[in-house]
Amino acid sequence: MKRKVAIVMGSDSDLPVMRDAVKTLRQFEVPFEVRVISAHRTPGAAEAFAKGARENGIAVIIAAAGKAAHLGGVLAAYTTLPVIGVPVKSSTMDGLDSLLSMVQMPKGIPVATVAIDGAQNAALLAVQMLALSDETLSEKLESFKINMEREVMEKDRAVMAEVEKL
Amino acid sequence: MKRKVAIVMGSDSDLPVMRDAVKTLRQFEVPFEVRVISAHRTPGAAEAFAKGARENGIAVIIAAAGKAAHLGGVLAAYTTLPVIGVPVKSSTMDGLDSLLSMVQMPKGIPVATVAIDGAQNAALLAVQMLALSDETLSEKLESFKINMEREVMEKDRAVMAEVEKL
Amino acid sequence: MKRKVAIVMGSDSDLPVMRDAVKTLRQFEVPFEVRVISAHRTPGAAEAFAKGARENGIAVIIAAAGKAAHLGGVLAAYTTLPVIGVPVKSSTMDGLDSLLSMVQMPKGIPVATVAIDGAQNAALLAVQMLALSDETLSEKLESFKINMEREVMEKDRAVMAEVEKL
Amino acid sequence: MKRKVAIVMGSDSDLPVMRDAVKTLRQFEVPFEVRVISAHRTPGAAEAFAKGARENGIAVIIAAAGKAAHLGGVLAAYTTLPVIGVPVKSSTMDGLDSLLSMVQMPKGIPVATVAIDGAQNAALLAVQMLALSDETLSEKLESFKINMEREVMEKDRAVMAEVEKL
Amino acid sequence: MKRKVAIVMGSDSDLPVMRDAVKTLRQFEVPFEVRVISAHRTPGAAEAFAKGARENGIAVIIAAAGKAAHLGGVLAAYTTLPVIGVPVKSSTMDGLDSLLSMVQMPKGIPVATVAIDGAQNAALLAVQMLALSDETLSEKLESFKINMEREVMEKDRAVMAEVEKL
Amino acid sequence: MKRKVAIVMGSDSDLPVMRDAVKTLRQFEVPFEVRVISAHRTPGAAEAFAKGARENGIAVIIAAAGKAAHLGGVLAAYTTLPVIGVPVKSSTMDGLDSLLSMVQMPKGIPVATVAIDGAQNAALLAVQMLALSDETLSEKLESFKINMEREVMEKDRAVMAEVEKL
Amino acid sequence: MKRKVAIVMGSDSDLPVMRDAVKTLRQFEVPFEVRVISAHRTPGAAEAFAKGARENGIAVIIAAAGKAAHLGGVLAAYTTLPVIGVPVKSSTMDGLDSLLSMVQMPKGIPVATVAIDGAQNAALLAVQMLALSDETLSEKLESFKINMEREVMEKDRAVMAEVEKL
Amino acid sequence: MKRKVAIVMGSDSDLPVMRDAVKTLRQFEVPFEVRVISAHRTPGAAEAFAKGARENGIAVIIAAAGKAAHLGGVLAAYTTLPVIGVPVKSSTMDGLDSLLSMVQMPKGIPVATVAIDGAQNAALLAVQMLALSDETLSEKLESFKINMEREVMEKDRAVMAEVEKL
Repeated sequence: MKRKVAIVMGSDSDLPVMRDAVKTLRQFEVPFEVRVISAHRTPGAAEAFAKGARENGIAVIIAAAGKAAHLGGVLAAYTTLPVIGVPVKSSTMDGLDSLLSMVQMPKGIPVATVAIDGAQNAALLAVQMLALSDETLSEKLESFKINMEREVMEKDRAVMAEVEKL
Repeated sequence: MKRKVAIVMGSDSDLPVMRDAVKTLRQFEVPFEVRVISAHRTPGAAEAFAKGARENGIAVIIAAAGKAAHLGGVLAAYTTLPVIGVPVKSSTMDGLDSLLSMVQMPKGIPVATVAIDGAQNAALLAVQMLALSDETLSEKLESFKINMEREVMEKDRAVMAEVEKL
Repeated sequence: MKRKVAIVMGSDSDLPVMRDAVKTLRQFEVPFEVRVISAHRTPGAAEAFAKGARENGIAVIIAAAGKAAHLGGVLAAYTTLPVIGVPVKSSTMDGLDSLLSMVQMPKGIPVATVAIDGAQNAALLAVQMLALSDETLSEKLESFKINMEREVMEKDRAVMAEVEKL
Repeated sequence: MKRKVAIVMGSDSDLPVMRDAVKTLRQFEVPFEVRVISAHRTPGAAEAFAKGARENGIAVIIAAAGKAAHLGGVLAAYTTLPVIGVPVKSSTMDGLDSLLSMVQMPKGIPVATVAIDGAQNAALLAVQMLALSDETLSEKLESFKINMEREVMEKDRAVMAEVEKL
Repeated sequence: MKRKVAIVMGSDSDLPVMRDAVKTLRQFEVPFEVRVISAHRTPGAAEAFAKGARENGIAVIIAAAGKAAHLGGVLAAYTTLPVIGVPVKSSTMDGLDSLLSMVQMPKGIPVATVAIDGAQNAALLAVQMLALSDETLSEKLESFKINMEREVMEKDRAVMAEVEKL
Repeated sequence: MKRKVAIVMGSDSDLPVMRDAVKTLRQFEVPFEVRVISAHRTPGAAEAFAKGARENGIAVIIAAAGKAAHLGGVLAAYTTLPVIGVPVKSSTMDGLDSLLSMVQMPKGIPVATVAIDGAQNAALLAVQMLALSDETLSEKLESFKINMEREVMEKDRAVMAEVEKL
Repeated sequence: MKRKVAIVMGSDSDLPVMRDAVKTLRQFEVPFEVRVISAHRTPGAAEAFAKGARENGIAVIIAAAGKAAHLGGVLAAYTTLPVIGVPVKSSTMDGLDSLLSMVQMPKGIPVATVAIDGAQNAALLAVQMLALSDETLSEKLESFKINMEREVMEKDRAVMAEVEKL
Repeated sequence: MKRKVAIVMGSDSDLPVMRDAVKTLRQFEVPFEVRVISAHRTPGAAEAFAKGARENGIAVIIAAAGKAAHLGGVLAAYTTLPVIGVPVKSSTMDGLDSLLSMVQMPKGIPVATVAIDGAQNAALLAVQMLALSDETLSEKLESFKINMEREVMEKDRAVMAEVEKL
């Protein structure tokens, strides 16, 4: 059975930001589950989830949260699986609070932090980790990279035409 | 039996900052205990401590931590006792990371945050909370305030003499 | 007679932010009063309010203000009751000015600061303080916590269905 | 009788920063007094000082404070004399907390804020205000400006020689 | 002849922010002129304006500018009249760039900085400076302060009624 | 053949910001090309572009990018032509991330950084560089400067009329 | 043959910070190599290294750099292996510049960022990734976690004794 | 006659930072002069210098200043020569004030800003500009780049030996 990626959000209000992670995992045909678990409101669920993650077939955990975004750290405290953190921008502080709360983890408990609202990159990072032992995924990543390159190159070819109209 | 204040530090390296809290609680003759509990390295101990705090005679919890300072939030997740947060300045970001990680708590789980490295104020805040139902403490707080006022006033009287020497 | 919580705002423009505090105190059936007192425009009223708070039956003061948010500190200067600060976001600086003006209080005069615009948490913190000597409130806090947990868990059960539609 | 400038510090630990203000006022032969008054620890003294300032012959108030630097605002609340604020850098946040607490005053109560630790400029600003109705001071300011210009010009002439040695 | 206040803006796009300064000066019947002078695009005009300000009957200069807001400093370089700086918020950096460019002036050349977009306070500060030698203005400032106090007190009386409706 | 300016954008979404650069180069009749090249998605194209720039008749490179804006640095790594960086504001961090990523280049590889979203100034800077060896451009820059001055002066003349209507 | 972790530094001055990564990889008996490769001064080496990493037996890349820390992004542009970024604090901006330059990567090219100067966590994260397909490493991580827990618990037991001496 | 680079400092205290610019220009055998000119204390000298720069044989101006660093903008206001800005870190705000005061220039007057304390890069940027019409300089830049590359490569070869000793 293929190991899953878990996308855990601190609140269901994070879903619009995290949809890009869902899409990307689908695109790579990586099985995943999506959970709403709050480090502060459902600490028991957070603990149970993180402790049981490995035997529930989860390989990588993506944790998305805003403000004092403890979710990544709290899950990482209970597992040795890699935890990827997505700091979510809320109505104040422009995402800086979430970013610092996620990335500035003390020694011993890393959270692999991506950009503020960086849901797609969190998914790609999870895929990269899985691809370390999955040749097919590794090839898909190569194709993905080549496609990205192509898309930018097409835009590069198109831009002078657009500029003429300015 | 008088209820205690617990001073919980994320690391024993926070002790030099937190000694002012110890001194202040001693000054007010408020019983206290000091613990080193890490939200990330000893999450089980954090949970056990917070869940058992009330029946262990603890009334107020002071949580001091640096960097991505989750300790206050993690303890608050497991208790309805008031949790006071002391953001501790570490070697980078001048305390801003700890401050935001402590104070920007999501709805439902407050952490009463004081200044960066504000150990004495954390202790005073704990005393103020206990004094809500303890007349003696309340009077001690009044005396403390009057003493502070007196000290500043003495300095006020002394300062012109110092200025002459400049 | 039950002791009250006072919600003090530096300006009536803070009311939309502070309505969550009002709702939460109502929910807990904690008596409260709401005041508009400016640390700078009505300093006499601020002094009179803070000095008289205790004998007017107030136990905890919530102070909400924006920009150079001195209100919490100014009230705390005149009372030994606990003062909770709510930094309110205004049109510039994304709330950072209010936060630092509230939380960075000097030694001796704490202000228990919550998140920017964190009105609900300010009310919960006030309830937690009152609950130290009020068993009924303490039980209500437990129920509140359990309800929060339940709500998140329901969202957790619902989220995979939502994800299917993405 | 010539009107005085008052230099008010929130703590005597601000004196090393404020000595430049003292020196500058002496240089301009402007009478002054130096006070230690805390907005939070001696609020009564702050009120009394500010309310009585005008009739005690004070024309301009310089207020220096660190961290949540409310002193300028608190004094300005009780007087219509101009209040100049000097944000003092403390051990955390590199002076940003003091600066924002001083400068971001709400409508109606200005504090004329100078640079972090900008004691000399606070004194010069006070002199500029007094010079509006004092021809002699006005001329001294002109001389001061010319001297500053000369000093920079001398350094300008000297610098190429220094550069040769690099 | 009564001396004037000059309101100088770095760009006519600052006018919407600065209208409050205009209104306030009108309210106090202080004569004023409004200028658009750019420190960078019309440096000659800036120099000529500042050098001639005193003999053109100007007593106080209010300088409003955004981004790298040099206007206050550039005018202050050419005059010993007090210069008040209004940092104007532009489309990036939330006003922090203008604030720091205005307030962090080097030794010898103060700019009396008010809050970001703080046009009214700039005008009040100018009035306070003029009032140092103008008893009538001084009395108007007292009335203004009393009116502000009254307005807040009315809102204080009204707020509980509004709260009932929440 | 006249040497060109290259405007390189990290994404075609930067075009609305960069149109001002296009317009300004047209105004000065400086030949230019516009490219979409991503430092991260098309690193090969970035390398090829920068390595070949000089022999393709390019004299100055303008690089515009948002978030972790590496484009300027990556191009500068492969050429000794001057590279001008335009930090583009994205949806989080208000442009600070792009600014620091562009301007804080390590020793040896400068990127000449202009204001966040400062497209016009990037173009002007490019023109200034070309004008070092092009007398006609140099004269056009003088005319441009005089026109700017005139425009501000017209606004200066118009502003008092506008103020009357306030 | 076991796959390696590569520790790449932008400058040899980053070595004191990165020694913790070296020690941690040794502790886990994970083979590694250490390289000094500058994104800006040796872009060709960066490209060659990243392109060849997979076939040179590298599984995970740790990139450490300061200031405008492009190294992580530049390596990630040329490989689909996971890249972990360590923002290194330099003499200005307290690490914020490196952090934002590393973490705010655009869509498609993630860099898994850890805390400023967070060398040990970078190594642990690399081990966690390798452990996804290496049972022995996975068990070592569990032991490591248990040891950390024990160390904190010992400090917890010792702290009250230390407090007595305060 | 070869055109010169001018290094202008706002204060002679900036010389220790700017020595790297001097060394680099010497290394490239580019003639230069060093000046101490303050935008605020010697505005007349600033104007005279900038207006006369071109006919005094200056091609590029490097302006270094701290705090509210207006020097770059003030010189740029009086010339169409390219002006390079070096924000100098002072005792507060870690260089952010100088950086924003330099880089956030309004439309029409660019200052090509390099890193905080980035003296060497300022010099290199000046050389790059001169090299646009000076083949010899252009070749020296190529050699410089190759040398830098070599130095890093030597460190790369040496680092594994150093690591053995850790």
